[in-house]
Amino acid sequence: MDSRNTFKTPSDSFSSERLSETLFVVKIGGNIIDDADALENFIEQFSAVLEPKILIHGGGKLATEMAATLNIPQQMIEGRRITDEATLKVVTMVYAGSINKNIVAKLQAKDCNAIGLTGADANIILAKKRIVKDIDYGFAGDVVNVNINLIKVLLENKCTPVIAPITHDGTGQLLNTNADTIASEIAKAMSEDYEVQLIYCFDKKGVLENLNDENSVIKLITKENIDTLKADKIIAEGMIPKIENALKAVGAGVQSVSIGHGLELRAIIKGEAGTSIK
Amino acid sequence: MDSRNTFKTPSDSFSSERLSETLFVVKIGGNIIDDADALENFIEQFSAVLEPKILIHGGGKLATEMAATLNIPQQMIEGRRITDEATLKVVTMVYAGSINKNIVAKLQAKDCNAIGLTGADANIILAKKRIVKDIDYGFAGDVVNVNINLIKVLLENKCTPVIAPITHDGTGQLLNTNADTIASEIAKAMSEDYEVQLIYCFDKKGVLENLNDENSVIKLITKENIDTLKADKIIAEGMIPKIENALKAVGAGVQSVSIGHGLELRAIIKGEAGTSIK
Repeated sequence: MDSRNTFKTPSDSFSSERLSETLFVVKIGGNIIDDADALENFIEQFSAVLEPKILIHGGGKLATEMAATLNIPQQMIEGRRITDEATLKVVTMVYAGSINKNIVAKLQAKDCNAIGLTGADANIILAKKRIVKDIDYGFAGDVVNVNINLIKVLLENKCTPVIAPITHDGTGQLLNTNADTIASEIAKAMSEDYEVQLIYCFDKKGVLENLNDENSVIKLITKENIDTLKADKIIAEGMIPKIENALKAVGAGVQSVSIGHGLELRAIIKGEAGTSIK
Repeated sequence: MDSRNTFKTPSDSFSSERLSETLFVVKIGGNIIDDADALENFIEQFSAVLEPKILIHGGGKLATEMAATLNIPQQMIEGRRITDEATLKVVTMVYAGSINKNIVAKLQAKDCNAIGLTGADANIILAKKRIVKDIDYGFAGDVVNVNINLIKVLLENKCTPVIAPITHDGTGQLLNTNADTIASEIAKAMSEDYEVQLIYCFDKKGVLENLNDENSVIKLITKENIDTLKADKIIAEGMIPKIENALKAVGAGVQSVSIGHGLELRAIIKGEAGTSIK
């Protein structure tokens, strides 16, 4: 086992079978980013993971607030932001500017050598403008390719990439891209070279059997039990695409996907919290 | 001579004496950034330089405009921005977010593998909050240290760092830092490993003998003729600190410093335009 690993991981028992190193790909959303104390707590836990790691962040709520201050009307369809030119400027400023650089500075203060990037930087994520069917999403991008070369160089140099959900199309156009998708695409691409553990942090302790009971976390979801969970309506509508994406990631080589609360990162890594999807 | 060099440089005649590779450190300011056509033209010329290169950009005018839109009053003293907390957020969004990422995407479109950074990223520029004497500059930072390790790794991997004038203090605080200073500090630090040519692009063709005549560019300023130029009041007040900084950079190991128009980058590199300070 890598001696730099501070936490026992769920995969410890398999370590003798594994040749490649563990890489944690962690995604955080608004519930952590918007709350200074929660962010500080998360940063403390994340920086304590001494294994190679990548952080992907969202920040939608802060972008919505900035758009409101700038009198730029926002329109969301099925949780996706319609990104007109003015909105693209706002999300680029908020995600790649203030959120990304504040997280980087806070990680640096904890001796985590963070480097903030978007998909345009070193061409790490090439995307294409979403094809319009009934809805024009504007400058919203779907991931075409993850270029892992520079990410590997950064990890080998003990840097921790911190990725904002902005990509580019290769012709000079920036695009707004879903952070959950970026996390799973990076996890999948990196699984060629690493044993990737993808962790989605959100505002619940995991997938709950009973939405009103924070302690009813379902510990394990597999291809075998997902249909039963869906049939019994235990997995609610909003959670289905997340879990199906997670299962796809596992199918594409990611070792494990966990969903849990950002303030329980340490416990999720140890396998003592969150929902594990395998 | 490096076969990747597309332009004949002023130093061609010395090439046989040199062991290390040439690195261009280029700084651009508002006159290029604010004008879409000028930026496109500059990007074309900059991306055509196939030798290792670093771009540092300002963006003060766009930050001032965004602050006005957000009703955040701005105060400048001797050309330096007083950076209160709200202003720091604005400059971080504008410099590290919109300007930096737009330049990166445009360079990527020209096959220049740009990577946008601030001083906080990979801890490349550590700064400290300016010591307040008579004036409280707020979150304005003076450079303490340039950490060239990762910059060298990026250059060796054919990446082009694009640096926004935001630094950090190592305790989690971002700081607003003068882009001219960042350019000279990076040029000085990199001169340990490269033959550095530092190029300041501004809105004139060079240091002018007659401010009303764009074609009266002084071709060469040296330690020997600067006193005469100052005594004859040919070098005006605003230009004196720039040129003294340039002479200090040369004294600290930078091979040459040039000052010229951003749209003449190609000619400046060839030694056919701008003012050379040696």
